[in-house]
Amino acid sequence: MPALEVCLTPELIHLHPPVGKTVVVTDILRATSCMVTALANGVESITPVASVEECQVLQHKGYIAAGERNGVQIDGFDLGNSPLSYLNEAYSGKKVAMTTTNGTLAISRSSGANTILIGAFLNLSSLIDHLSIQTDDLLIVCAGWKGKASFEDTLFAGALVSKLFPIYDTDSDAAVMAREVYEMNQGNLLGAIQKSSHYKRLKDLNIDDDFEFCATIDKFEIVPVLEKGVLVPSHR
Amino acid sequence: MPALEVCLTPELIHLHPPVGKTVVVTDILRATSCMVTALANGVESITPVASVEECQVLQHKGYIAAGERNGVQIDGFDLGNSPLSYLNEAYSGKKVAMTTTNGTLAISRSSGANTILIGAFLNLSSLIDHLSIQTDDLLIVCAGWKGKASFEDTLFAGALVSKLFPIYDTDSDAAVMAREVYEMNQGNLLGAIQKSSHYKRLKDLNIDDDFEFCATIDKFEIVPVLEKGVLVPSHR
Repeated sequence: MPALEVCLTPELIHLHPPVGKTVVVTDILRATSCMVTALANGVESITPVASVEECQVLQHKGYIAAGERNGVQIDGFDLGNSPLSYLNEAYSGKKVAMTTTNGTLAISRSSGANTILIGAFLNLSSLIDHLSIQTDDLLIVCAGWKGKASFEDTLFAGALVSKLFPIYDTDSDAAVMAREVYEMNQGNLLGAIQKSSHYKRLKDLNIDDDFEFCATIDKFEIVPVLEKGVLVPSHR
Repeated sequence: MPALEVCLTPELIHLHPPVGKTVVVTDILRATSCMVTALANGVESITPVASVEECQVLQHKGYIAAGERNGVQIDGFDLGNSPLSYLNEAYSGKKVAMTTTNGTLAISRSSGANTILIGAFLNLSSLIDHLSIQTDDLLIVCAGWKGKASFEDTLFAGALVSKLFPIYDTDSDAAVMAREVYEMNQGNLLGAIQKSSHYKRLKDLNIDDDFEFCATIDKFEIVPVLEKGVLVPSHR
């Protein structure tokens, strides 16, 4: 039986070496919710990069530049960090370059993994299906907020643990805690997300529709996978 | 209103600078449970040290040497890490030098705080009383296990958050999560502790009485405080 562990923040990744594992990166508000929505709406690929400058270089090459710092769209970028921007195939066929405060860092810190997948409530069941038929040990990496654990990412990690528990083993206390937080809140995910400090930081930006969208389960049937540094839909 | 935050492991202490705060250090299995029990049973003082060698130096000066590595008593030491050793005033009037895998490290990483207090379920209400009449910001430092968050320490942090919430403010997601884990498990603390990976590591040592003891609320009315590097009962 493969093992499962939860890394509550990229700041603890040295205690959870990704080498040889399948990693699921999650940043519910809002990077991985964006990635799932974009690829489900026809975006050709997403290149996650760490810095604004790298994004700008790709923008000059014709990429759509998307990203935020502290929740706010970066000056000169085409898009911020709202998943709603990608609906109705608005950017179908385009390549996106993306940088965010926490989510893209979580992806870069996961390098060395056998496979890096992207998870959000929006693609929960598709991700569960994918993880139910693979046999590598699983590491769930929560993006958190500037190094600290975040409620909404732990909540999502707990959803994965809750649904995968019969087929994965774990000795990760973080996984047990995440599972309990999810199972206590599964009846009201939006309400749960509103307990997070990230919600309190972002709510003045008037993005209530984003919160509701990011708390929606199974809107899309897609599992983004990192291939040669670029996120594309998995064909598994 | 003072603020409250939870540091899930000493590995994240750089994100929670202790300077100017009151810190509560907790290591339920079993360092802080030992400290509370020892001082409540007449031990004069406890000197927490990081290394086995420092403990041995103090042992040569007449201190009782107590400590463990990976749960097991250190060769040549007088005591391991069982709180039961200190009952019935067995070491009353003695000075103890103590080193443990995680607990003493959590104390040393908290240096710079205004005040460092020691918490366990054994002294929960006394600690709550103490924290109810102080006005510094509060940082709860969980000792964890070798850098990772641990279930039982998070559970205790959650007990503090749950009881202090009306009089402290927080924007710490770790505090919100800890509170939920505690409130979900408060009816069966021993059962909760048995979910932890630490329990699974230690259970082969046949220390079931220790687990039950460490899950007992309010056995002692004492709040250990660090004064000049030495733990003594608070006289507040």
